[in-house]
Amino acid sequence: MPNAAAALYAAEVLPQPYLLFLGDITEPGYAKTAFGLRDWAAERCVGEFACEGASVSTGLPFMDPAQARQAGARAMVIGVANPGGRIPSSWLPRLLEALQAGLDLVGGMHARLSGIESLRAVAAAHGRRLIDVREPPPVLPIATGRKRSGRRLLTVGTDCALGKKYTALALARAFQARGIDARFRASGQTGILIAGEGIPMDAVVADFAAGAAELLSPDADPAHWDLIEGQGSLAHPAYAGVSLALLHGSQPDVIVVCHEHGRERVLGHPHYALPSLEETIELALRVGARTNPAIRCAGISLNTGKLEEAEAQQAIGETAARLGLPVADPIRGGQAFERLVDACLA
Amino acid sequence: MPNAAAALYAAEVLPQPYLLFLGDITEPGYAKTAFGLRDWAAERCVGEFACEGASVSTGLPFMDPAQARQAGARAMVIGVANPGGRIPSSWLPRLLEALQAGLDLVGGMHARLSGIESLRAVAAAHGRRLIDVREPPPVLPIATGRKRSGRRLLTVGTDCALGKKYTALALARAFQARGIDARFRASGQTGILIAGEGIPMDAVVADFAAGAAELLSPDADPAHWDLIEGQGSLAHPAYAGVSLALLHGSQPDVIVVCHEHGRERVLGHPHYALPSLEETIELALRVGARTNPAIRCAGISLNTGKLEEAEAQQAIGETAARLGLPVADPIRGGQAFERLVDACLA
Repeated sequence: MPNAAAALYAAEVLPQPYLLFLGDITEPGYAKTAFGLRDWAAERCVGEFACEGASVSTGLPFMDPAQARQAGARAMVIGVANPGGRIPSSWLPRLLEALQAGLDLVGGMHARLSGIESLRAVAAAHGRRLIDVREPPPVLPIATGRKRSGRRLLTVGTDCALGKKYTALALARAFQARGIDARFRASGQTGILIAGEGIPMDAVVADFAAGAAELLSPDADPAHWDLIEGQGSLAHPAYAGVSLALLHGSQPDVIVVCHEHGRERVLGHPHYALPSLEETIELALRVGARTNPAIRCAGISLNTGKLEEAEAQQAIGETAARLGLPVADPIRGGQAFERLVDACLA
Repeated sequence: MPNAAAALYAAEVLPQPYLLFLGDITEPGYAKTAFGLRDWAAERCVGEFACEGASVSTGLPFMDPAQARQAGARAMVIGVANPGGRIPSSWLPRLLEALQAGLDLVGGMHARLSGIESLRAVAAAHGRRLIDVREPPPVLPIATGRKRSGRRLLTVGTDCALGKKYTALALARAFQARGIDARFRASGQTGILIAGEGIPMDAVVADFAAGAAELLSPDADPAHWDLIEGQGSLAHPAYAGVSLALLHGSQPDVIVVCHEHGRERVLGHPHYALPSLEETIELALRVGARTNPAIRCAGISLNTGKLEEAEAQQAIGETAARLGLPVADPIRGGQAFERLVDACLA
């Protein structure tokens, strides 16, 4: 495996506030990025914009790029992802309009904004930037394994797409509400758009993945907490390597294990059963102890979004009783969530 | 994490036989690639070539590129790696001489041959190719986790650089000597040069690493064995993610755990103790069972290169007694190695 000169990661903060672009979609499931920004960075979103025919809305005021610029926006964010991650030509007039109005363009899709000639030309002519957040830093170090100062929490999942980002964001808010110096650390494209910075772990060359995770939560004040967005799952047949590199490089003091109530099969891999919470905790603590022997599991973040309130409370209570750990749905909040926060800080 | 269309990996075989280029080095430790080719692909190496002042030799006949071309060579391989992985300008006249003599150039260093303007120009003028084996296939699939036909063995290490490649190569030879349809599958640059094909796992984007490993050992005849070169270690603070992705994607039926007798600290990470063989076996079987529940450990490949024969035999015997598994040094061979092969095939 190669050596690489250690490099500083210039944590360039994205231009904000944002105008959210919803393309021409009619399926809310494709707008996860826009909804994530509305939910977690509403104070940095001035409004939304879309092509004619779009039917999905974040509920933010509709405005064109010129109006958004007047309202203080500095960038328009592609807030939707088509299947395939491509940028359809029908969006181009709207994207060009944003550049001409003085907004930078920010995208997190697989397709690179900078790969489209007409965008490049207009951006250059207007002194605007095309920013692809799924582009990792050009130079990354090989991980050292050196223990860093400050405190770290990583959200660990039983699967993809069940609440690791929302949990880290909710915990960061809760820590801050208690007066703690805490910061969300984004490891995926939507998280990066919310935080305004971060490293897209899934786009890093494998040999540098743990090194990228080390860069993501650098040395800090001993009382500072980094709340790190997890990726994938140690039991995922495609992404476990990313999850392990992120766990090793994050060297968390605390993990919170995230699960969706009732999910039994790996998303998109129905021939794989989901690991139990018990197995997930045990394996994460075992391999995580390699870079931080003091690692511990504070509790469970249980996504109960598909349940009614009474069912959700029952699922939370049963899981807590079974594991003997605090269990909460951060979206529901309440006393259960405060107890989970207590356990993280204990 | 992204989806990607499944892609076929066009396993382009490298132009062979080779002329081995030794640069201007005087330190044998930098010539691992040349020595690996001499040891494992001698029948495809017509000779060696070097700059004036070089003092390292593989023992193959010295010849210039024109003589090598006459002797049947089709490519000159950069068989050495300087610290930093760069191509010094003092090598360029020799590299150009090879292109002019009708040889392609093949490199496995971090620096890309195709990144050097004068090489590009001369290669184009002479219809020759510049081949960088550390360049992964341009399109890789996301792993599916689907069980493939045929049988697989993966070498798993307690650390880097202690014999995983040599062990897989030795086992492939031993399998073939017993009349078994067996093939070495290379996952690193030297292995790729030896095999003439393969995928450089350390250069793959993290999200696609398990998918690359799936591509590396495709569906095969039920009696066929792929002997897959391992990478890194599940306990390595920098590379464990690569190791886990390779383990998951390889879905081995059998692992052979590779260790260097007496190594107690992780190479280059002296604050990390090496895991025990017992821990290494147990963790690899546990996580490997995720994609192949029938995974088993056939035994240990013990690198005793620093020991005298009597000491080596004692170390092998003691390790075998302690673990209750076959233990052998493939380089020493003998009955112990045949017993290890028996156990792999049991």
